[in-house]
Amino acid sequence: MLVGWKPDRESDIPLHYQISRHIRNKITCGDWPVGTKIPSQRWLADEFGVNRSTIVMALDELTADGLLHGNRGGGTVVTGLCDHPGSPPPPDWISYVNSGVQSSNIPTVQEINRAEFRPDVIRLGTGELAPELLPQEAMRTVLQALSSETMPLGYAEPKGSASLRQFISQHVETYGIRAAPSSILIVSGALQALHLISIGLLHRGSTIFLEKPSYLYSIPIFHSAGMKLTGIPMDRHGIQAALIPKYRKQYNGALLYTIPSFHNPTGTVMSRERREQLMQVCHYEGLPLIEDDVYRDLWIDEPSPLPLKAADSSGIVLYLGSLSKTVSPGLRIGWIIGPEPVVDRLADIKMQTDYGASSLSQAVVEKWLSSGLYQQHMENLRQQLRHRRTIAVKALEQFLGDYADWEVPKGGFYIWVRLKRELPLKALFAAALKAGILLNPGHLYEGENNRHIRISYAFASLEDLETGIFRLSVLIKDMSNHFETNKSEE
Amino acid sequence: MLVGWKPDRESDIPLHYQISRHIRNKITCGDWPVGTKIPSQRWLADEFGVNRSTIVMALDELTADGLLHGNRGGGTVVTGLCDHPGSPPPPDWISYVNSGVQSSNIPTVQEINRAEFRPDVIRLGTGELAPELLPQEAMRTVLQALSSETMPLGYAEPKGSASLRQFISQHVETYGIRAAPSSILIVSGALQALHLISIGLLHRGSTIFLEKPSYLYSIPIFHSAGMKLTGIPMDRHGIQAALIPKYRKQYNGALLYTIPSFHNPTGTVMSRERREQLMQVCHYEGLPLIEDDVYRDLWIDEPSPLPLKAADSSGIVLYLGSLSKTVSPGLRIGWIIGPEPVVDRLADIKMQTDYGASSLSQAVVEKWLSSGLYQQHMENLRQQLRHRRTIAVKALEQFLGDYADWEVPKGGFYIWVRLKRELPLKALFAAALKAGILLNPGHLYEGENNRHIRISYAFASLEDLETGIFRLSVLIKDMSNHFETNKSEE
Repeated sequence: MLVGWKPDRESDIPLHYQISRHIRNKITCGDWPVGTKIPSQRWLADEFGVNRSTIVMALDELTADGLLHGNRGGGTVVTGLCDHPGSPPPPDWISYVNSGVQSSNIPTVQEINRAEFRPDVIRLGTGELAPELLPQEAMRTVLQALSSETMPLGYAEPKGSASLRQFISQHVETYGIRAAPSSILIVSGALQALHLISIGLLHRGSTIFLEKPSYLYSIPIFHSAGMKLTGIPMDRHGIQAALIPKYRKQYNGALLYTIPSFHNPTGTVMSRERREQLMQVCHYEGLPLIEDDVYRDLWIDEPSPLPLKAADSSGIVLYLGSLSKTVSPGLRIGWIIGPEPVVDRLADIKMQTDYGASSLSQAVVEKWLSSGLYQQHMENLRQQLRHRRTIAVKALEQFLGDYADWEVPKGGFYIWVRLKRELPLKALFAAALKAGILLNPGHLYEGENNRHIRISYAFASLEDLETGIFRLSVLIKDMSNHFETNKSEE
Repeated sequence: MLVGWKPDRESDIPLHYQISRHIRNKITCGDWPVGTKIPSQRWLADEFGVNRSTIVMALDELTADGLLHGNRGGGTVVTGLCDHPGSPPPPDWISYVNSGVQSSNIPTVQEINRAEFRPDVIRLGTGELAPELLPQEAMRTVLQALSSETMPLGYAEPKGSASLRQFISQHVETYGIRAAPSSILIVSGALQALHLISIGLLHRGSTIFLEKPSYLYSIPIFHSAGMKLTGIPMDRHGIQAALIPKYRKQYNGALLYTIPSFHNPTGTVMSRERREQLMQVCHYEGLPLIEDDVYRDLWIDEPSPLPLKAADSSGIVLYLGSLSKTVSPGLRIGWIIGPEPVVDRLADIKMQTDYGASSLSQAVVEKWLSSGLYQQHMENLRQQLRHRRTIAVKALEQFLGDYADWEVPKGGFYIWVRLKRELPLKALFAAALKAGILLNPGHLYEGENNRHIRISYAFASLEDLETGIFRLSVLIKDMSNHFETNKSEE
């Protein structure tokens, strides 16, 4: 919250006074309105590079002046402005913050989002490519090429750049999807696709079917739009399609969300037979699907079966693709493929919310797809992911073999590690963070799941992967033994 | 809808048969589900490069087969799939499209969005820089420079790139705003800022105060989130701040949205005195403001008075800035400055909806702000806008002087042309479009306004500006005379 400022150690003014003055300014200029929770003493001490006792002195002074109020344990809160007696109170921003329609991210996710930017943390759960896997060299080539061309600097068409849609049309044809450019909408990543679908196609109170567990449980996007998620169990072939008619009768789902290839978080690849069955059932039920296929090109052992969309003869599937997992999340480019009236509607909504994706990013993606760089990069990336998977699996076997099991995924980023006994995962998450390891615990993907951890071999360095899994194993062993002991003492 | 396909004139197969087969495929593969309105015969004929009679033959065949149904005047609609007897009907996408939470763009805006991509149209209303005003050369320099650096290809921090926020902090300080990088959120343009505010800070049923007329009336963003807009009249100094307490009592507004500098659509610059009064009133009322300041740097005669945010001692103002109007809309980069808890909340929501703005665009904007290119470009741009304004005003005086009046704006893009008599603007809009001119009529900015047209001197070429205003004047004269005649005949 205070990034960029440090007290001046050369100054004659005492450090604690410099700090209290800085915070006082934050409060009186309205940056920290009444009700703001200020960061912990420990965090402030780290941030300003001073002893905790200096922070305590500064905060005590502000508390004495009536600007702060400290609750035991509950943190310190901004309470008022001492120096404007008689003037009306500032707007109660905290009540505004609390009254918005959109839910906050779930607390564990917020904590993960914050902790990701701590340099000392080993990110064992992060579902994105490591910096060293990102194609710096190729991107330089692309920018170099673009810098000698006329750039699209204006707004793009509502559906996105026509020439990029043409290339995406050709790209998806390589795995059997026939889509005219007019059936394609460029979006700022697959997450935005889901946001547009949630506010563009469904009414409040709708039910979404999905795999259980699913990545979708970790984001409040449908929940914020007033919709319910109903999970359908999976087996090793994917979502149990045979159960859908029963669920449909009971919950009247409006849409089914599925990740058939390298499922997040389980890594499962839906078999060809299951895909056929799923399409038949959904066709019969008149139940549209969202096929989230952003991991498709990240196969390691062999390509997945063709997408559901490739067998979609009646326009029942909305297909989501993206370059975020394969080339660069920073580009923020993905696509939705679906029936034209649906794509037109979603394009209209996208125009209302952000006037379209970055033209620059679109031009870069077009170069990637049209130049052959994408295929080259993917071949190389697959090699690297294969190696990383080997290292991760080896470390798991060595350190966690007695406490957990897992399927080795055939691609994607994730190993869905199943603990042999339940553990309180929220406590494990907290303990791990303290030990410098950032985890994605099972309850992000399935309420009350105290049994699984999603390990990603895509992000942490090879060394960190080993160290992280080792440290994690120590924590798991301790916790397991602790429970064992407690149990035997009972 | 059919972009990219044309019948093959070399083929032995008759053209009308090729066309009916193409449309049949569209329908049977689900691209055009039941209920889809297909484009007009005229449009199809243009698109396929055939006579209208060929289209009629193709559609007749499809109608006879039960795939299409033509309503007189109401267009032709997809009705069914003849060739899957007994199979269950596909999902009713049209009902999904109609049941989304988010409203559609208002029809005139949808029509404008579509017509903007017709090459033959003179865009007299478009509020963006003409292609020839976009800084191609400087952008090439920036890309060239970036191509020799390490690119930020991963996800950025929730609030956006830390270094870009540092430069924005310095940039806004040049007009008196003191904002720590932690109080700044990078967004994909000011429109997205409004979207985030609408779903992040307000509950359904809230009332937003705003100038009347206002750009905000032309976008359904607050309406979709269940909020009401209540307009407060303007005079030549800006919004009539003295009326706010009365409005507050009557409507209990939660937030006031204002464009104090080069107001959209009127071009008004709020005077210094009015700014002070507005801040006092809002401070006293505890009424937070959104200050939309995206036109600030587009002054022509002299800079505007300092922003409201510069005098904001209690954190009452959420400030919006952007490079879309000045450098390139295609970058999709803007910012929100406000109290930290508000910015934190909006950052969390942005993460939920699209995981942040394009890192590439952020890197480009950083280069613009840090290299001095921005200031150079703005100086040049001001010269060009001054010249364009002169040409537009001259053409207005020459062709419309007897029928309308206007204030010459001191900056921004817009001349708010007031007709001396009311005219049915929807009819004028339609007639103008037929004559190849795209207008932004007053009713976009104020319901029932039949008196104003927003002319932009930023987009059309100099020649088109003159031709467009001339053609418009002919239409206005005809329409005025027509009404005059009708009146005298009564």
